[in-house]
Amino acid sequence: MATIVFCSINKTAQATARRCWTPHLKELASAVGHRVPLSFTHSPLLLPATRWCSRGTGVRFMSHGTSGRAASGRARRGALALSGAAAAAAAAAVVGFLANANHFQRAEMATRVSQSAEEKEADKEGGILERCLGFMSPPVTDVSVLQETKAEMRTRMEMLIMETQAEFCRALEKVDGGTFKVDRWERKEGGGGISCVMQDGKVFEKAGVNVSVVFGNLTEEAARQMRSRGKVLKGKDGKLPFCAMGVSSVIHPKNPHIPTVHFNYRYFEVEEEDGTKQWWFGGGTDLTPIYINKEDAFHFHNTLKEACDKHHPQYYPDFKKWCDRYFYIRHRGETRGIGGIFFDDLDSPSQEEVFNFVKSCAHTVVPCYLPIVYKHLNDSFTAEEKDWQQVRRGRYVEFNLVYDRGVKFGLATPGSRIESILMSLPLTARWEYMHEPVEGTQEAEMMEVLKNPKEWV
Amino acid sequence: MATIVFCSINKTAQATARRCWTPHLKELASAVGHRVPLSFTHSPLLLPATRWCSRGTGVRFMSHGTSGRAASGRARRGALALSGAAAAAAAAAVVGFLANANHFQRAEMATRVSQSAEEKEADKEGGILERCLGFMSPPVTDVSVLQETKAEMRTRMEMLIMETQAEFCRALEKVDGGTFKVDRWERKEGGGGISCVMQDGKVFEKAGVNVSVVFGNLTEEAARQMRSRGKVLKGKDGKLPFCAMGVSSVIHPKNPHIPTVHFNYRYFEVEEEDGTKQWWFGGGTDLTPIYINKEDAFHFHNTLKEACDKHHPQYYPDFKKWCDRYFYIRHRGETRGIGGIFFDDLDSPSQEEVFNFVKSCAHTVVPCYLPIVYKHLNDSFTAEEKDWQQVRRGRYVEFNLVYDRGVKFGLATPGSRIESILMSLPLTARWEYMHEPVEGTQEAEMMEVLKNPKEWV
Repeated sequence: MATIVFCSINKTAQATARRCWTPHLKELASAVGHRVPLSFTHSPLLLPATRWCSRGTGVRFMSHGTSGRAASGRARRGALALSGAAAAAAAAAVVGFLANANHFQRAEMATRVSQSAEEKEADKEGGILERCLGFMSPPVTDVSVLQETKAEMRTRMEMLIMETQAEFCRALEKVDGGTFKVDRWERKEGGGGISCVMQDGKVFEKAGVNVSVVFGNLTEEAARQMRSRGKVLKGKDGKLPFCAMGVSSVIHPKNPHIPTVHFNYRYFEVEEEDGTKQWWFGGGTDLTPIYINKEDAFHFHNTLKEACDKHHPQYYPDFKKWCDRYFYIRHRGETRGIGGIFFDDLDSPSQEEVFNFVKSCAHTVVPCYLPIVYKHLNDSFTAEEKDWQQVRRGRYVEFNLVYDRGVKFGLATPGSRIESILMSLPLTARWEYMHEPVEGTQEAEMMEVLKNPKEWV
Repeated sequence: MATIVFCSINKTAQATARRCWTPHLKELASAVGHRVPLSFTHSPLLLPATRWCSRGTGVRFMSHGTSGRAASGRARRGALALSGAAAAAAAAAVVGFLANANHFQRAEMATRVSQSAEEKEADKEGGILERCLGFMSPPVTDVSVLQETKAEMRTRMEMLIMETQAEFCRALEKVDGGTFKVDRWERKEGGGGISCVMQDGKVFEKAGVNVSVVFGNLTEEAARQMRSRGKVLKGKDGKLPFCAMGVSSVIHPKNPHIPTVHFNYRYFEVEEEDGTKQWWFGGGTDLTPIYINKEDAFHFHNTLKEACDKHHPQYYPDFKKWCDRYFYIRHRGETRGIGGIFFDDLDSPSQEEVFNFVKSCAHTVVPCYLPIVYKHLNDSFTAEEKDWQQVRRGRYVEFNLVYDRGVKFGLATPGSRIESILMSLPLTARWEYMHEPVEGTQEAEMMEVLKNPKEWV
């Protein structure tokens, strides 16, 4: 059992921390309060620093191992175990991650002399605490644990997805003028997530940006299903410790001339019977316009292509095709949108190189989408154009509920947070019987592209 | 090959036929014209009777056997084979079914002396032609074939589902003031259907009443899936000739105080390797109110109970429970509505008795639902009540796309008519993130019932 005790922290760091987190904690309090037995409203962060930053508080962290649920390799990564009665300790988790920062940095510096290549790479990404302060919420894994394990891929990926969430949410808030509702949730079986949703804003009908970091044990069958190539994985007594994390987002704007965007970047680890770790990455970004705009389509695809080309010349052409194939509404014989890139099960040439590729993709989300949003911000539209948008929204719902592997897996998995899975659905949608655009119209032009995917670059 | 040639028909019957069918044929023409290579706009029915009611037209019916597709027992039931070039013959199908009526009745009378019990029962149901004249469209199977086989269960069920469609559509048209759009469609692999849809009416947002009669060959796996008990059926070279037919309907009213209703009655036949025919019936009627009204709930369930009780005292309690279990949105932990009855795989005590039960259920649709519609026709409602209706419509979509066996089977079956399958989706729906009714409100009362199904009778 890893027992972590609070230690003192300097006044400047405290002030910074309080400034950054207080507004989010207030949101967290109102959002989370009625669902899980946590209350951030009385967070020690709101009390004088001297009261929550001393050794004497007696609030302790426990490793997952002690809860008897996470029997995986993750166990050694201490994380907060929450019970119904642990409201105070829960609130203190936030404090803990701030308070312990320098302590662990110093401890590490003192006990290690040389750095591995992974650690050097991780160091380039910057200090854990400083990066965490920019997030929409404290990360799912306790920050002290992230610091302890900063060279591990799990940590580096969790930091990347939290960062991507924050960067995208802030860019959307800026253009909309609204504020994301931040919900922090836990998964009884291990892990949790942070859902950021803005609904009925000025620009966005519904914008959802979700992070989840979950772990526990998978059955061999479930592990096989998680992996698109369906590789057989051998577990100990049929069970496989796993860890899955990702950031995913769907943005439905109000104006039918601003397209819907979706992206998702994810990382999996599964530990086999003999202790070997299988890992892979997946992800993609794709656009669903209501009307075709060739300039937008070129900008979107070209931005993705440039990100891909830095890593492999085949990535863009291969993952563009994969995207068209994946986002296909079979019963309609049409794609969901004009695609982008999609990949899964990526585990070569090396973990470092795949991670760097995923990082490039994640950093491309804002430059892919925001210029298109700004460009069409003040486009006027008719009631007929709005209706067509609503019909296309209906097709979006059909794809997500009938085919999307993530949604299907989520809905079928006990303990999933349904609201986070279904936040991808639009605020409003429409199903008109026998709706068929008139030949020669812009709606018919859109259908033509959806029935016959194009090359945009 | 069964060749059927036109014969003369008396003037009164012609006049009646013209009066009954002409308006529907006009609708058919506009609805069907751009999708399948049929055109009813130049239907011989619109020409002088002397031109389309003589032996000299040369228009012939072909049995399915000749097309090489329907290798089932159905083959001997001649039906119209349509090709792209067969527009004239297609139009003549309507004529044929009217023109051949008396001919076959006479032929039957002349060649048969004694009647079987089934024939006596079928006779009680009335003459095929007279009944057909009340339908929304000519039936899927050619009327002369229905007359030839009037004692067979397939025919009796097809007549029942066509009748149920017409009775329900007429009752809805009367209350709404609108008119159903009637689409006749064909399934390349065998059979077809008649879809009646009224959209954006005065009372109804979307009302769909669909009949389908399909046949062909099933794989053993598909046959197993069609049957809820998953019985293993042995086919010849792995193939099983089958016939499936049913009437299904979903009505979404505009006023949130008028509930949504759904019903479906269906019949299956599968022929095994040794020639034995497996058959079973399924069906049910269920109500999805937006707000609880105990009086409505009692009326609806009690009307169903009375229909069930005539056949078996256990039918209502058993099929009520089955309904609550079936229409369960697992990922939400709530039922779709307040239920009704649902049954599947019913094949005892005898075909005659199960058919009589299904007939009672089908005859109960109008008395179950229409009194509720009339009662709330002029109820006023607020924007908030309309919003709540839209959120509940979203859950309806979730059930239908994620769980409904019929929809899943339809979407996965090549050659299905998607518009008929998805006509069950509402015109509009809404997904609000984290929507939770305030305690003590009528919305919360509704949720309580959906989370804990009640006994209403």
